[in-house]
Amino acid sequence: MSQDKKAQQFGVTPQSVDFNEWYNEVITKADLADYSPVRGSMVVKPYGHALWERIVRWLDDKFKETGHESLLFPTLIPMGFITKEADHVEGFAPELFTVTKIGTEVLEEPYVMRPTSETIIGHMWSQWLNSYRDLPYLHYQWGSVFRAELRTKPFLRTAEFFWHEGHTAHETEQEARNEVQQMLNIYHVFCRDILALPVVRGKKTASERFAGAVDTFSIEGMMRDGKALQSGTSHYLGQNFAKAFEVKFQGRDQKEHYVHTTSWAISSRIIGALIMTHGDDKGLQMPPNIAPIQVVIVPVTRKDNTEQMFEAADQIADELKALGVRVKVDKREGLSNGFKYNDWELKGVPVRLEVGPRDLEQGVLVVKNRTHGDKEILPREEVISGMPARLQEIQQFLFKRAEDFLLENTVPVDTFEQFKTEIDNNKWVLAHHCADAACEASIKEETRATTRNEPLSEGEYFNQESTGTCVKCGKPSGYSKRILFGRQY
Amino acid sequence: MSQDKKAQQFGVTPQSVDFNEWYNEVITKADLADYSPVRGSMVVKPYGHALWERIVRWLDDKFKETGHESLLFPTLIPMGFITKEADHVEGFAPELFTVTKIGTEVLEEPYVMRPTSETIIGHMWSQWLNSYRDLPYLHYQWGSVFRAELRTKPFLRTAEFFWHEGHTAHETEQEARNEVQQMLNIYHVFCRDILALPVVRGKKTASERFAGAVDTFSIEGMMRDGKALQSGTSHYLGQNFAKAFEVKFQGRDQKEHYVHTTSWAISSRIIGALIMTHGDDKGLQMPPNIAPIQVVIVPVTRKDNTEQMFEAADQIADELKALGVRVKVDKREGLSNGFKYNDWELKGVPVRLEVGPRDLEQGVLVVKNRTHGDKEILPREEVISGMPARLQEIQQFLFKRAEDFLLENTVPVDTFEQFKTEIDNNKWVLAHHCADAACEASIKEETRATTRNEPLSEGEYFNQESTGTCVKCGKPSGYSKRILFGRQY
Repeated sequence: MSQDKKAQQFGVTPQSVDFNEWYNEVITKADLADYSPVRGSMVVKPYGHALWERIVRWLDDKFKETGHESLLFPTLIPMGFITKEADHVEGFAPELFTVTKIGTEVLEEPYVMRPTSETIIGHMWSQWLNSYRDLPYLHYQWGSVFRAELRTKPFLRTAEFFWHEGHTAHETEQEARNEVQQMLNIYHVFCRDILALPVVRGKKTASERFAGAVDTFSIEGMMRDGKALQSGTSHYLGQNFAKAFEVKFQGRDQKEHYVHTTSWAISSRIIGALIMTHGDDKGLQMPPNIAPIQVVIVPVTRKDNTEQMFEAADQIADELKALGVRVKVDKREGLSNGFKYNDWELKGVPVRLEVGPRDLEQGVLVVKNRTHGDKEILPREEVISGMPARLQEIQQFLFKRAEDFLLENTVPVDTFEQFKTEIDNNKWVLAHHCADAACEASIKEETRATTRNEPLSEGEYFNQESTGTCVKCGKPSGYSKRILFGRQY
Repeated sequence: MSQDKKAQQFGVTPQSVDFNEWYNEVITKADLADYSPVRGSMVVKPYGHALWERIVRWLDDKFKETGHESLLFPTLIPMGFITKEADHVEGFAPELFTVTKIGTEVLEEPYVMRPTSETIIGHMWSQWLNSYRDLPYLHYQWGSVFRAELRTKPFLRTAEFFWHEGHTAHETEQEARNEVQQMLNIYHVFCRDILALPVVRGKKTASERFAGAVDTFSIEGMMRDGKALQSGTSHYLGQNFAKAFEVKFQGRDQKEHYVHTTSWAISSRIIGALIMTHGDDKGLQMPPNIAPIQVVIVPVTRKDNTEQMFEAADQIADELKALGVRVKVDKREGLSNGFKYNDWELKGVPVRLEVGPRDLEQGVLVVKNRTHGDKEILPREEVISGMPARLQEIQQFLFKRAEDFLLENTVPVDTFEQFKTEIDNNKWVLAHHCADAACEASIKEETRATTRNEPLSEGEYFNQESTGTCVKCGKPSGYSKRILFGRQY
C-alpha cells in the first residue's frame, strides 16, 4: 500500500467496539501480514517476519544449548503413513492437503502435505536406530505445516503456518517425560522473559490431547478480550508412534524395546498472542526484548534543516547501537511528523525520540514511551545512556500489566450458574471437574468454554492443590486441583 | 545406523572407480543426508543441516546488509497463476506437484506446490504497489520448492529442495540490471571466500535461460569428475512478470509504468558442489570457513586414564573456543582410535588433534590436517595459538587446489574434433559459437555438452574478449568472447 493510501486509512477500530476487527486491521495496517490468494494462507510481510526471525533465533539457540539437533524432513508424507496411528488419522484426516498428481502422472498412493511430522520421522528413526547407545534422538525442524481450517485468521489460524516441531526418542518413559517438561519450561521462560506473556503451564484433559498422545501439556495465555490462546504444546507420546512405525532398539538387557517419544511445538500463532495480549486502540505494543525496532528516531525537519537533523539523528542512532539498542531513523520524505508518530505507534515501537532544531541547541531530546507515561524532555546524554534501562522497564511494565489482567480475570467458581455468568463476562474460571469426557463435552456445548488445562503444581498460577465436586455433575473431582476453563481461539 | 554397523561399512568407493557411487556413499556415510520414502526427496541429517545453517546465516546476513527484506509467501500457488506467463508454464508444467483435494473436498482450481514464486509474488506486488516512492522492493524468502525430477540425487537434484529466492522490483531497467549483477557478485564472493569454490560468472545463452527471463546469469563450478555444476543464478526478468501480473506504479511523470523485476537463488545443491569439488577417496573435505566442526580432538584413552584425557581435551577445546574455533571432543565410548580418525576424515573435519598421556607429559600435541601434510608433533601452546592461521592456510589450500584444477581442465578449442575429444576427456572447452539455438542444440545432441555461460569480462576466468568463427558451423561468433561448454549435473 502506498504511503498516501495508508494515511487515509489511519486509525483502527477500537478494541472495545470490535476486538476481532481491531485485530485484523492492526495486522494489515502495521504491515505484519496480508491475505493471500491461497485459501486460508497469509503472506508474512517484512515487519512481521523480522519479529518471527527473532522468535526463531531465540528458540533455536535454546534448543541447541539443550543438546537438540536440527534436521529437514520432507514436506510431503505418503498417505499410508498418516493412517498407521489410529488416533492420529482420525484427528487430521479432515484437514489434509492432498497431492494426487506429479506433472501429468496421477499417483497411485497420494501424498499429503504434512500436518505434523511424527509419522515420517518415526519411519526414518526405524531405519536409523539400532542400539540404546544411539539414544536419545533429540531432533527438531523449522518449517511450514498445512491444515485446512474453516475459519482462518492471520497468525492465529491459517492453513499454512510456520513452526518448529521437536521430536525426541528415549530409552525410558521417565527420560521422555523429563524432556516434555523441559521443553514446556523453555516455552514458559521464552513467553515470560522475551514476549512478556504470562502463561499457565498445565496438563490438557484427555479430550483436548494431541491426536496420538498419552499426555499433552500446554501453555495458555489470556488475550485482552478474555479468550484463551493455547500458545505452545509439549506431548508425551508414549510408545504409540514407536509401535506404529516399529521404532525399536536393542536395550541394555540385549532385548528389543520400543522407544518412548515426545513432540513439542510453538508456531507463528504466538505472534497472535503477542498482538492480542499487549495491543491497544492505537495498535501494537512490542515488548522491547522481541521488538525488531526498539527505538525510532523522528527528525523534526523543515526544508532548510533536513540534512542537519538527519545527521543529528544518525549520530544518536549510532550511540544507541553501540549500547546494543535496535534503532531506526525515519527519513521518509513527504510525510508529516504526526503521520510518522501514528505510524510507529501503530507498529508498537517501544520508544520514540524526536530530534528538533531547538532541542538540539538545548542539548535535549523529546522521549515518548509507547506503553505508558507522558512525553518527556530530557538531556540528550541521559536519554541515550538510560535507554537500555528504559527498555527493560517497559518490558517489565508489559509483563506486569498482562499478569494483572490474567489474575483479575480468572475466578474460582463453585456452581454451574456462576460458571456460566463468569464465562459470559469473558472470564476464565477455575472449577472442580469430574474428568469425565461426556461431562466436559456438555459444558462445552452449553457455554462454548473448554478446559484449558490442569495447572501444574510447580507453575506460578492457580497451582494450589484442592479437592471438591464437579461444577457440572457434582461427582468428585478427577484432578488434583481446580482446572481452568475459558473460551478459546 | 549404529556405530557397529557403520564400522563394518567404512571406506567409500574410490572416485576413480565410480565417482557417482563415491558421491552417494560419502553423503550417507558422513551422515549428511539420507533417502526418504517420498519420491525424490531426501532427509537432511544433523551434520548436513549444520552445514546448511551456516550457509543460510552467511547469505542472510549479506542480504540484509545490502538492504533486502525477508518475507514468507505461501507454499501453494493457484494453478491459474502459473499459466499466466507463457514461457514460465512451458518450463515448469511437467514438474509440478498438484494439490487437488483438501480434506474430502475436490478443488475446482487445483493448487501447485511452488516450483519458484515469481507468480504469486508478482500478484502480491500488484496489490501493494502504487507509486515510484514505494520502490524498489528488495524481497527474499527462505523455504522449500518442489520440482519433479526423473533422476534424483541427494542435494544435487531432489524433488523438494531448500533455497532462498530473491525477488526485486525496480523503477528502471538499469537499476534492475545492477541488482542482478550485485547478487551474482555476492554469490561469487560467498563461493570464493567461504566455500573455497572458484566459479565462473557469466551470462547463459538464450536456450539455457530461466523460464520467463530476459537474461540469466550463473556461477558455474567444476567438479572433480570434470562436470559442471550451475551453482547459483541471477535473472533479469524485464517486464515479463510485471505484465503478466499487472505490477504497475505511478512514475515520476505521473504516468503508469510496469516495474522491472529480478530473481536470484542459491539452493541446497551448493552442498553438492562443495562435496564434489573438495572431497577425496577418504570422504569429505570441509573448508574451515564453513565447516560445522573445524577441529576435532580425539583423546587417546586407556581404561585407567579416560577421565584425565577427557579433562585435558576439554581444556584444549576451551582454549580453542576462546579463539573463535569450532571444536568438538570425541568422547564416544567403545570405539577404537582408528575408527574415530577414519570417521572424522570421512566427515571432512579440517584438523584433528590427538591427546595422549605421553604427549601430555611432554607438553605436545599430535596434529593432522585433513587436506595435506603429515602428522606433526608440536608444542601444545603453538598448536592452540596457531590454530586460526592453520585453518586459514587450509582454506587457501582448498581454494588454490580447486582453482588449479579448474584452469588445468579448461581448454580452448578451434575445431569440432578437438571439441569432442576434450569433452570426452572430461574437460570444459572454450569455443567460439554462432549463438544460434539450433546449432547449440546440435552440439548438445552430439556431445552431451551444453553451454555453461559466456564468462563476464569483469570476471576472473576466461574473460578475454575475442572474435572467431563457430566451432560447429563456422559462422561468425555471436558473443564477445569464447564461451564455456561442458557436461553438467
